[in-house]
Amino acid sequence: MTHPGAPAAARAIIAAGRRCDRNGWVPGTAGNFSVRLDDASCLITQSGRHKGFLTEADLMAVGLDGSPRGPGRPSNETPLHLALYRRDRAIGAVVHGHSRAATVLSMRAGDAMTLAGYELLKVLGASPDPDCAASLAVFDNDQDISRLAARIDPTLAAPAALPGYLIRGHGVYVWGSGMDQAMARLEALEFILACELEKLRRTE
Amino acid sequence: MTHPGAPAAARAIIAAGRRCDRNGWVPGTAGNFSVRLDDASCLITQSGRHKGFLTEADLMAVGLDGSPRGPGRPSNETPLHLALYRRDRAIGAVVHGHSRAATVLSMRAGDAMTLAGYELLKVLGASPDPDCAASLAVFDNDQDISRLAARIDPTLAAPAALPGYLIRGHGVYVWGSGMDQAMARLEALEFILACELEKLRRTE
Amino acid sequence: MTHPGAPAAARAIIAAGRRCDRNGWVPGTAGNFSVRLDDASCLITQSGRHKGFLTEADLMAVGLDGSPRGPGRPSNETPLHLALYRRDRAIGAVVHGHSRAATVLSMRAGDAMTLAGYELLKVLGASPDPDCAASLAVFDNDQDISRLAARIDPTLAAPAALPGYLIRGHGVYVWGSGMDQAMARLEALEFILACELEKLRRTE
Amino acid sequence: MTHPGAPAAARAIIAAGRRCDRNGWVPGTAGNFSVRLDDASCLITQSGRHKGFLTEADLMAVGLDGSPRGPGRPSNETPLHLALYRRDRAIGAVVHGHSRAATVLSMRAGDAMTLAGYELLKVLGASPDPDCAASLAVFDNDQDISRLAARIDPTLAAPAALPGYLIRGHGVYVWGSGMDQAMARLEALEFILACELEKLRRTE
Repeated sequence: MTHPGAPAAARAIIAAGRRCDRNGWVPGTAGNFSVRLDDASCLITQSGRHKGFLTEADLMAVGLDGSPRGPGRPSNETPLHLALYRRDRAIGAVVHGHSRAATVLSMRAGDAMTLAGYELLKVLGASPDPDCAASLAVFDNDQDISRLAARIDPTLAAPAALPGYLIRGHGVYVWGSGMDQAMARLEALEFILACELEKLRRTE
Repeated sequence: MTHPGAPAAARAIIAAGRRCDRNGWVPGTAGNFSVRLDDASCLITQSGRHKGFLTEADLMAVGLDGSPRGPGRPSNETPLHLALYRRDRAIGAVVHGHSRAATVLSMRAGDAMTLAGYELLKVLGASPDPDCAASLAVFDNDQDISRLAARIDPTLAAPAALPGYLIRGHGVYVWGSGMDQAMARLEALEFILACELEKLRRTE
Repeated sequence: MTHPGAPAAARAIIAAGRRCDRNGWVPGTAGNFSVRLDDASCLITQSGRHKGFLTEADLMAVGLDGSPRGPGRPSNETPLHLALYRRDRAIGAVVHGHSRAATVLSMRAGDAMTLAGYELLKVLGASPDPDCAASLAVFDNDQDISRLAARIDPTLAAPAALPGYLIRGHGVYVWGSGMDQAMARLEALEFILACELEKLRRTE
Repeated sequence: MTHPGAPAAARAIIAAGRRCDRNGWVPGTAGNFSVRLDDASCLITQSGRHKGFLTEADLMAVGLDGSPRGPGRPSNETPLHLALYRRDRAIGAVVHGHSRAATVLSMRAGDAMTLAGYELLKVLGASPDPDCAASLAVFDNDQDISRLAARIDPTLAAPAALPGYLIRGHGVYVWGSGMDQAMARLEALEFILACELEKLRRTE
């Protein structure tokens, strides 16, 4: 934790993990979180730790080229985080959780979900107008994370893309300029997904 | 915060925000809260703040004519609060949250929902008698908040109107003589809406 | 609070109220709680208080004949509590909450619900054998509480009666030898009702 | 608590009980928890205690042959724990809770549930590949716990068995090398079961 920005980044990650745990979004050892430290590195959760009980010792710095900046083993899904930081210098934090709604909806969706008419779409930079649908990409899960990252990366350039995507049976990725924005977007997206799941239940 | 009533109003708003956050009613930066300070002004949440983590610095005083009483940018939806305070001097607090039930139900309702047979309707000043239905107004969402306020305002004069309404895809507004009553009414209404959503699920 | 048993009774009620609030069972000002003080009186929540934020000042002693033992206004539903204490000297605590499951199920049930096959029925003194169904009484709501109490009271003598009942659109009453047992029974019954509601949803 | 490992084991059990209580998995006096002390004994919850409020006085040591190591009455379901510790010396903790999803699903399942396509199956040592289904055993409930244990024990030798099983109308058993792993597996399994329950609801 020698980087001057590491303590603040660590506090943001630890708080985000606790909050996601209270929401049931990081069951078991699920989920991972990172914050950009500078143009060349980020701080990220280590592999296999419970995200509701993180301490600084559960985090480590990694170069955006994938090189670890110290001892430890970063999250298996580190390449998905790094691809986002390399693509856009305005991205300052990436969060990944597993919610029931994201898991169930992703297992029944095709390659995208259409979301429309929610005031909270504004938090995701999209229009709440019921006639302006936003599209949320859904990717098949893959245990080869570098291959998955290479598959996802080119799709992020679409001009109307939401700042997030789903991995089937696995969960949601969301990002923002910093952890506050990333978490606000995660909360907004999870709320919308929970509403979508509710709507799918057959009603009279 | 020079108004003598501001510290107590701030404490009430901060506590209400935390409580709504624990209930999942203010995801992302959703929701806004206000408390009347006197005949001419109220204290209200500033725009874009997370309502689960409010401090005094996230609040500001606004005249009931819309004029800010100090630096900062009040909630975008301030006109909806002011219209209520101007209409009725007995209104001392206004709360707005986004729940899943209010969002999903408002997206399938017409211009009103009928509620009947709930003991908790008493908290909203209505009869729990199953034969005495109460009507909850539902308004289309509108990004022009002054226009929305002008549309809502005349409907509030109906003698049997509940002290609250829904905005489609957006959430619920509820008010009371002070924050305690406004929050009790919000909890009662959200409970009833959650039951209504449950009833809509097809059962055998 | 001059009765020597009042401080312990008050602590039990306050803790039960907070716990029910965290579970969403006392929305608004719903619910009421009491603990027997002796053969002739109990301590009970006053009318209109939020059960998640109780202090000793929100409680008062009442004689089992209904006479207040000091200033204040006891819960409107005090007669339902007193009827239980008068019927059975082994009853030491009575709890009443409003859950979504109890509310929705009671609104669709007849005059009883049949519960079978749950291990947790043991907490309610009933058999978990799937072939041994327990019956939970459901009463129509009534704003005349003394009349409601008179209607409920004779039904409690049934030998196989569970230590609780539902009031339609209103909630659940449960009792026990003391608050620990009453709360354990409430939790077990609410769990079973939530499962029953889940089963009613149409599944493939 | 004279065993040198008992204080740490007690802390792990107490924390697990509180966490399960916050998740609604130990309603009433449901659930039981144990941690292996050595080759011949474990620490386990006593019968009838609320698992959300455990102290050291609610725990006791028991030999793996069933002999109590001190005063008190161990959980009724102690034989199910002991059978696991005797079968596999690598098992260091056993947790049992009652969730709504496990209860409802077990009441409609046959003698096993098939789980596939969840990333979180990795936490349970199974493949997340949608084509590789894992099988979760479901046993009929039985108040004769030794008979139930004798029925369950031989089925645990199946090479692809998940580290857990369901008892119908009763709940889930999960184990691990220690409490951290047992709880991570419990959280992962409960998450998957909650998703399975969600999928069973009929959708359009």
